[in-house]
Amino acid sequence: MNLAERAPDYIRAIAPYQAGKPISELAREMGLDEAAIVKLASNENPLGLPPKARAALEAALSDLARYPDGNGFALKAAIAERFAVTQDQVLLGNGSNDILELVARTFLRPGDSVVFSEYAFAVYPLVTQATGARAIEVKARDYGHDLDAMLAAIEPSTRLVFIANPNNPTGTLIKPGALLEFLEAVPEDVLVVLDEAYTEYLAPELRADVIGFLARFPNLLVSRTFSKAYGLAGLRVGFALASAAIVGMINRVRQPFNVNSLAQAAAVAALDDADFLARAVALNRQGMAQLTEALARLDLPYIPSFANFVTFHVGDAAALNSYFLRHGVIVRPLASYNMKNSLRVSIGLEEENARFIEVLEAALR
Amino acid sequence: MNLAERAPDYIRAIAPYQAGKPISELAREMGLDEAAIVKLASNENPLGLPPKARAALEAALSDLARYPDGNGFALKAAIAERFAVTQDQVLLGNGSNDILELVARTFLRPGDSVVFSEYAFAVYPLVTQATGARAIEVKARDYGHDLDAMLAAIEPSTRLVFIANPNNPTGTLIKPGALLEFLEAVPEDVLVVLDEAYTEYLAPELRADVIGFLARFPNLLVSRTFSKAYGLAGLRVGFALASAAIVGMINRVRQPFNVNSLAQAAAVAALDDADFLARAVALNRQGMAQLTEALARLDLPYIPSFANFVTFHVGDAAALNSYFLRHGVIVRPLASYNMKNSLRVSIGLEEENARFIEVLEAALR
Repeated sequence: MNLAERAPDYIRAIAPYQAGKPISELAREMGLDEAAIVKLASNENPLGLPPKARAALEAALSDLARYPDGNGFALKAAIAERFAVTQDQVLLGNGSNDILELVARTFLRPGDSVVFSEYAFAVYPLVTQATGARAIEVKARDYGHDLDAMLAAIEPSTRLVFIANPNNPTGTLIKPGALLEFLEAVPEDVLVVLDEAYTEYLAPELRADVIGFLARFPNLLVSRTFSKAYGLAGLRVGFALASAAIVGMINRVRQPFNVNSLAQAAAVAALDDADFLARAVALNRQGMAQLTEALARLDLPYIPSFANFVTFHVGDAAALNSYFLRHGVIVRPLASYNMKNSLRVSIGLEEENARFIEVLEAALR
Repeated sequence: MNLAERAPDYIRAIAPYQAGKPISELAREMGLDEAAIVKLASNENPLGLPPKARAALEAALSDLARYPDGNGFALKAAIAERFAVTQDQVLLGNGSNDILELVARTFLRPGDSVVFSEYAFAVYPLVTQATGARAIEVKARDYGHDLDAMLAAIEPSTRLVFIANPNNPTGTLIKPGALLEFLEAVPEDVLVVLDEAYTEYLAPELRADVIGFLARFPNLLVSRTFSKAYGLAGLRVGFALASAAIVGMINRVRQPFNVNSLAQAAAVAALDDADFLARAVALNRQGMAQLTEALARLDLPYIPSFANFVTFHVGDAAALNSYFLRHGVIVRPLASYNMKNSLRVSIGLEEENARFIEVLEAALR
């Protein structure tokens, strides 16, 4: 007998997350030099590590045989101070993926339902399915969240709503006013998980006052990450802000040492590196202009993006993706999002963006 | 309404894991100097980081804004080679805690049951309860696993058996022959999770041939960690060996980037640092003699241990623990294991052990 087949049906039905191809893997597969490969596939920070985080890492290397602080005291204190919440309102995760999974595991059981949008982040259906809950996927409007339709889709069995703002992989944005109206209308026994992984890239006037929202809506949880603008993707650290009651309940399910020591040390330092964050955001603005100008010039339609990537439409995305890979450029195909004709490109350094444009032009000729 | 109370009853009933007190926390609480504190509470490696791992970490610092390799290619290749298995038989975890949780989440649903021993590792009941499955805790024999009773406790609803060998927090060992007999008798539709977090400390003749067992028993999963003898607790990395079918099913539930980049790099290097491992094991043997001689001299009964800690019995363990804390020595109280009269002390450096003995003698006077 195959014991693996004794897993619940909802587990057996999971199709694992497809990550961006690592540089080392492409180098192995294609016999390319790693240094010649441009990876614009995973919405990473092209500036690398914040200088303050690097210094913190070097200082923290001495104590790695000790377990991490399972309560994350220093990092929670820094986050609480920055966002003007109390420490018991801060939940730490092994990346925000861990946050999303923990919320699902804390509140869902087989038979419950979860509402999220078509084209929303792939982790929402994954964590939903892994609990045996049912996904209610709501048709997108212009590749973004249709909040009215999402409200209407909420059923008595619905325990969670996931919202990505800006959304990955489409880059769409829900404006603060629309978000507030949504929160006012959602039943109070439904937890709204507002995933703001890309919020640091937004112009200040486009950011919702989520701290104010938290005070008003006890059924709101805001998820953030250090993997994008803060440049710490390889270390795995994210966090959530919510009521102390929600955070306390999720902490019952959290692995005691889910966030490693170096991630905690680097995140504290990254929060304090305002100069790096400003440089990352400015670079992103310039790179977004560089990429969208090229796409427009090449007559490739794209979805206007508020994040650090842009999704564009081509005829045969799989063929173009293969072409990119053979020429050492990694972008993200979106077939798993049911967007077979689209590719997502992350914004890199100016020369990385230029390399992408160069290969794109060659492919189109 | 309190939304947190909408979590399933089995989630609300979880009492979170109680970790060893971090040095920084004790320093804050007692106004002590961190450098003066001895932590012998979490079975960490007193030698710190393997030198080869430290070099690997410094080399890996440059690329931390990239996501980790979600497939863990280099680390899985190194583990597969070391243990003579195929790469698809290797599962990577954010510490072996992650492995234990992933197994539970892959195979359990509400209504299933799980068998483990009284006094076995605290994470087994936690991960069981978080899935809504039912724990069947089997009375221990001499503080160790009673395998006959565990066999008899298996019910039709039982999907998993957890075995810790050596066991934490009691340090007891199941000999290879007894383990083999158990595996031969367990129903083939029950997955046996053999948690060998402390196996590196065993004399070779006491180690079971788990690689041979894996070939014979498709319902076996062996869990290992880099947090103990390998000295990487702060980085969070563990692994499991099992059939490719079992590993493949668990990978559906695994977070795509569960193991951070530095942990992967350091673990590859630590596997290759035979000299460090030998020094860690030798130091542990000497420290075990130092501690058990002192306990015998002080007429404190202890459980003979095969791991890197020893559990001893005192009258009022809570009072003695407070005394230790006030004097800057962190050991582990075991009240949460229903061992109110016992403390567990990890084996440290010779001078750390000596400090523990000195404070213990003072407390008993």
